[in-house]
Amino acid sequence: MKGAAGGSPARTGRRPGSSDTRDRILAAARAAFGELGFEAATIRGVAARAGVDPALVHHYFGTKQRLFVAAMEIPHDVAAVIPRALDGPPEELGLRIARFVLELWDSPEMHPLMLGIVRSAATDPVAAGMFRQVLAEGPFLAMARATDRPDADLRATLVGSQLVGLAMARYIVKVDPIASADREILVCAIGPTLQRYLTGDLGGAEPRA
Amino acid sequence: MKGAAGGSPARTGRRPGSSDTRDRILAAARAAFGELGFEAATIRGVAARAGVDPALVHHYFGTKQRLFVAAMEIPHDVAAVIPRALDGPPEELGLRIARFVLELWDSPEMHPLMLGIVRSAATDPVAAGMFRQVLAEGPFLAMARATDRPDADLRATLVGSQLVGLAMARYIVKVDPIASADREILVCAIGPTLQRYLTGDLGGAEPRA
Repeated sequence: MKGAAGGSPARTGRRPGSSDTRDRILAAARAAFGELGFEAATIRGVAARAGVDPALVHHYFGTKQRLFVAAMEIPHDVAAVIPRALDGPPEELGLRIARFVLELWDSPEMHPLMLGIVRSAATDPVAAGMFRQVLAEGPFLAMARATDRPDADLRATLVGSQLVGLAMARYIVKVDPIASADREILVCAIGPTLQRYLTGDLGGAEPRA
Repeated sequence: MKGAAGGSPARTGRRPGSSDTRDRILAAARAAFGELGFEAATIRGVAARAGVDPALVHHYFGTKQRLFVAAMEIPHDVAAVIPRALDGPPEELGLRIARFVLELWDSPEMHPLMLGIVRSAATDPVAAGMFRQVLAEGPFLAMARATDRPDADLRATLVGSQLVGLAMARYIVKVDPIASADREILVCAIGPTLQRYLTGDLGGAEPRA
């Protein structure tokens, strides 16, 4: 299964359209991990969804864990759009974050990916590690630092905690009325929470301020 | 495996100490579901933890799903203590909820149970259903209704969303500094969030008020 070409993306040219195949496998993997979580998803199941032989999935990605990491990578075009999406009046940062994250959840491209990470993080250590990194070192930390308030690490992870909980309620456990609420209702409900976590007084959380 | 006695708790008296055995199986099940989630936990694994034959687990509980439901039942002594724990000045209700729920998470009795529900809800429909019920119909709804504000259902589930997200960050994904923070730091950080969700202005969430 291991090609002599090693890690190079050049695939000997033997298989025309192999980049399409790889993308199809990744899309199938996102769907499978999103629906089932890391534990229950299988290479065989991903192959079946993609309409390819399981050996081909192994050929491209090796283990299920490496397939997961590849499938859950945030697309460059989404990453590139983050700073612009969050640009605006500082006192409305919380609203903008809430809106942007809910829009990502509702986009066909990002939905299965985010579902896959949250669902898998509940049971799989590798997924939990990726998720931990997003929460602790992702864009929220940069935002918290930019506000010049103390406890940026705590503030960033509090923002993450509310967003993850909202996602659990709306997209995974699907509890009403959160599951069926208009996006803007939720933006108005949790935006001020995120705003306070980033810029407000956290009470006992700032004894050293 | 199906005894003629049906659903009766009387077990023919053949097995002295059978109530202890049942409790040992339930404790083992909570540990297994808490650690692995519903999907990955097995009757065989639970039996091994409890030091009994898998057939005995089947005898007492039938399927893994029924074992899960039995293991995840909130103990009566905990349920009984909820109203008292939350009694106090209305303007500090959010702080009291945050403190009470974090204390439950940190109690040896409740920790594996709550871990099992949240972890399993991410991938298993039955667990998700139980969890949905706790969020939508549990004590938070009664509290939200008691405040006489509109949108009690939305308010209750928003409270649940923040508490679930905090639990994901602190106990499942274990992201620092939330994972290692003193309990009271987190109580002060999220208490006002819960207070606003229960009694505050939710902005766009009250167009019909």
